[in-house]
Amino acid sequence: MGMDVAPEVLGSSAAVLDAARRASVDYADRAAVNTDRSGFVPQSLPDGVVFAESVEDVVQAVKLAAAHKVPLVPRGAGTGLAAASSASAGEVVLDLSRMNRILSIDPVEQIAVVEPGVLNAHLNAAVAEHGLFYAPDPASTAICSIGGNIATNAGGMRCAKYGVTRESVLGLRVVLADGRELRTGRDTIKGVTGYDLNALMIGSEGTLGVVVEATLRLRPLPIATATVAAFFPDVAAAAAAASAVIAARLQPSVLELVDGPTLAAIDAALGTNYRSRGGAFLLAQTDGFGAHLEMDVLVNAIEPFTAELQRAADTAEAEALLTARREAIPSLEKMGRVSIGDIGVPRGRLAEAVTGLADISRRTGVRIFTIAHAADGNLHPIIVVDPQESVTEGPAKAALGEMFRLAQSLGGTLTGEHGVGLLKRDWLRDELGDVSLEVQHAIRRALDPQGILNPGKAI
Amino acid sequence: MGMDVAPEVLGSSAAVLDAARRASVDYADRAAVNTDRSGFVPQSLPDGVVFAESVEDVVQAVKLAAAHKVPLVPRGAGTGLAAASSASAGEVVLDLSRMNRILSIDPVEQIAVVEPGVLNAHLNAAVAEHGLFYAPDPASTAICSIGGNIATNAGGMRCAKYGVTRESVLGLRVVLADGRELRTGRDTIKGVTGYDLNALMIGSEGTLGVVVEATLRLRPLPIATATVAAFFPDVAAAAAAASAVIAARLQPSVLELVDGPTLAAIDAALGTNYRSRGGAFLLAQTDGFGAHLEMDVLVNAIEPFTAELQRAADTAEAEALLTARREAIPSLEKMGRVSIGDIGVPRGRLAEAVTGLADISRRTGVRIFTIAHAADGNLHPIIVVDPQESVTEGPAKAALGEMFRLAQSLGGTLTGEHGVGLLKRDWLRDELGDVSLEVQHAIRRALDPQGILNPGKAI
Ligand SMILES: Cc1cc2nc3c(=O)[nH]c(=O)nc-3n(C[C@H](O)[C@H](O)[C@H](O)COP(=O)(O)OP(=O)(O)OC[C@H]3O[C@@H](n4cnc5c(N)ncnc54)[C@H](O)[C@@H]3O)c2cc1C
Ligand SMILES: Cc1cc2nc3c(=O)[nH]c(=O)nc-3n(C[C@H](O)[C@H](O)[C@H](O)COP(=O)(O)OP(=O)(O)OC[C@H]3O[C@@H](n4cnc5c(N)ncnc54)[C@H](O)[C@@H]3O)c2cc1C
Repeated sequence: MGMDVAPEVLGSSAAVLDAARRASVDYADRAAVNTDRSGFVPQSLPDGVVFAESVEDVVQAVKLAAAHKVPLVPRGAGTGLAAASSASAGEVVLDLSRMNRILSIDPVEQIAVVEPGVLNAHLNAAVAEHGLFYAPDPASTAICSIGGNIATNAGGMRCAKYGVTRESVLGLRVVLADGRELRTGRDTIKGVTGYDLNALMIGSEGTLGVVVEATLRLRPLPIATATVAAFFPDVAAAAAAASAVIAARLQPSVLELVDGPTLAAIDAALGTNYRSRGGAFLLAQTDGFGAHLEMDVLVNAIEPFTAELQRAADTAEAEALLTARREAIPSLEKMGRVSIGDIGVPRGRLAEAVTGLADISRRTGVRIFTIAHAADGNLHPIIVVDPQESVTEGPAKAALGEMFRLAQSLGGTLTGEHGVGLLKRDWLRDELGDVSLEVQHAIRRALDPQGILNPGKAI
Repeated sequence: MGMDVAPEVLGSSAAVLDAARRASVDYADRAAVNTDRSGFVPQSLPDGVVFAESVEDVVQAVKLAAAHKVPLVPRGAGTGLAAASSASAGEVVLDLSRMNRILSIDPVEQIAVVEPGVLNAHLNAAVAEHGLFYAPDPASTAICSIGGNIATNAGGMRCAKYGVTRESVLGLRVVLADGRELRTGRDTIKGVTGYDLNALMIGSEGTLGVVVEATLRLRPLPIATATVAAFFPDVAAAAAAASAVIAARLQPSVLELVDGPTLAAIDAALGTNYRSRGGAFLLAQTDGFGAHLEMDVLVNAIEPFTAELQRAADTAEAEALLTARREAIPSLEKMGRVSIGDIGVPRGRLAEAVTGLADISRRTGVRIFTIAHAADGNLHPIIVVDPQESVTEGPAKAALGEMFRLAQSLGGTLTGEHGVGLLKRDWLRDELGDVSLEVQHAIRRALDPQGILNPGKAI
């Protein structure tokens, strides 16, 4: 139950679940939606689930929740890494996964209109037929929803060049906490009428409104791409090479770093042999009319640091390399219980961050694996503990806290793309300060005075 | 005086102007800041001006204004085109033009920190020495301030490829309506802690806070650019060619359209002879490692429509072409009093918009000149009337209203980049709807309950 809502004002979820269409109080349904992929396990289950199939279903559920003062937790595909869609006793989950239709694709305007439950990879497959792509590509592309991507402002590999979700969302249709429908943004590329409510909704983790439709900007598939896999003696060398790419004023579309232990985990899961080729790995892609020329310059920039370089001969080879990177987290999940960090640092301080993480691992005795969206300075230090251990208490939590302090000491942030959810609230005030949090709560109160939408998350 | 503030609650500006540092009540100072470049002329002058030189000056002025309930109108360089910095009796102008220092440039991180009064061109000249550029480049680059750019979310020619101001602002330091200092955003490229207050401030036209410092994202100057000037029999052909560029899946960094009458005005002002070469003009630039290859494809796409094509031989020739485009508005200003429209339409409907504008001109008898950021579907239809006529009443106002309706009928917006200010408020509700406006006012009340910051503007 969220900290925004005083327990005494909470109403009874039974009244909501009795009246709502497509509601379930089955144990199996409740157990299936009580957490995400963060490793966080709530103490209890939510009281029930509403499986919305239409905007009307959402409006009805929200109005009922508002009338009865019952907290509602929007849920996309449940792949989040911040416990932002976790729900427990007293709360009702609003599941949006059945609203999964692509409503239109306009190849001339390069725009798609989708329901929130559409999976990221599903959209990308559909628009690829028109020679287009939707830029934000979380590694979870096959299993995460556009609505969840919007609510977390998800990033991904291609964001190095194309920006995060915010840069690809033109407009939204949102159900507010009182059931009113709000349209944000517009169908045009540019526009400045009024405040940027579109950006305000993006990344708000379901606390300001429920996204029921999104108008997305697509981009032409690049005419050419060039891909290289570079292996380094160690992760410090790989980080230095990544900084050299930025310093060389290049604009790779992908620049991903994977450390040695993670390579070994990938090898174990996929049967590959990356780890034998180096103690760390950098995957770089350039695209556009000058892809190969730009790659030549990139290779020159990183060559002094490398142990081995593999330039992909074709798209199949490139795709295999991207898949290896995408499988990093699932591979680690096979080794134990994971907690996935998401710190951001100024790009030039990547090497310091990597060294600092190794120190933390040594000090706390916790295993930390590191992958990074290197061009953005966004690292995913992944804590792996034994399956019976907790990642939200004890040494793992201590290590997480040290990570955030490391990021902040380097002028960085505690979350680059996964969000705050329940998991990172303890460190939020340190980063944002009192005034910022006060302003955020004031906005939240202005939009959701009863605090029924995903209380206790995000801010 | 703004509509947000009931006259009876307004305090006396004298109390503010007596106590504030660097305040002036001189007629000349007040007359110099009562309007912008929109053609809108307020009936009266503001009561005084505070010329802030530091954050402390701003905080003091805002606290005084809050204590005495006096409306404060932030002002950058006064080049706005929406009367968003216009001020009249009862109001005090907070002039930020003296806060014009570049505080730091970090060429490795590709970040600059600036005070709000820094001129756009001044920043670009300073960072060019490091091989970098600040992407948003309004045609007013030489005379507009970064603070004003942020408050209007300004666009420009390069925004076709690099996005508008929002995409280049990492963080802000803002003085809120009660004098508290807020930090938004961060120093890293990515980050999702809390709501996107950064984007909320950008484009809010000084109604949510006063920007006193900005952390800006710079980009490496492109390794190569290719520039072409194409001349067409008429503006419809030029618009069709622009659409063909988008349909060909190209990503020009600049794609600007200028109609025949505007070409004639530029020729008159600059002594050039563009108009003799065609009835409309398209200026296209590509950049990056593949600039020339991409330009080859672009030229192929537009050639069927063109009367004449001129590929710039060097940067001097390219710069001359860009200057001609930048001088469009100043050239028209020499012909009479102007009112600069700023409608946005879906990119594929550019030709329809151009035809519609010709109809409006015919119907209302008002002269309309058209230039456009064609790649974004953002048109500037420019009304020119005789110097003694008004652009905010009579036929000119009627034509403006018809323009907005045209944009909306094409699925567009009434302002692509100049903002709402006082000038476009009448049409705002039609575009945004009641719920959106209510939400915007609720946010405004949450941040500025007394309504002292630039009341009556933007929303
Ligand atoms: C293997 C793996 C790899 C990953 N890689 C990445 C990565 O590269 N980049 C990245 O950014 N993330 C990554 N993630 C995290 C996760 O996939 C993203 O955060 C994703 O955006 C969550 O989408 P979802 O549909 O699963 O949302 P959920 O987990 O269901 O919900 C996430 C948040 O969104 C809210 N929400 C969901 N739908 C709506 C809606 N329609 N309206 C309002 N609020 C809503 C929820 O309330 C919650 O606050 C990864 C996760 C895994 C398991
Ligand atoms: C010839 C010409 C060409 C132009 N071309 C373009 C173009 O291509 N693209 C484009 O977008 N615009 C263009 N403009 C419009 C104008 O230059 C922009 O809107 C610019 O961003 C305004 O900046 P300014 O410093 O002059 O702001 P001002 O006009 O002084 O103010 C504009 C708004 O910003 C607010 N403001 C100013 N500073 C601050 C601050 N520090 N904190 C809070 N609020 C503040 C004001 O209250 C007002 O609401 C053009 C104007 C001219 C005259």
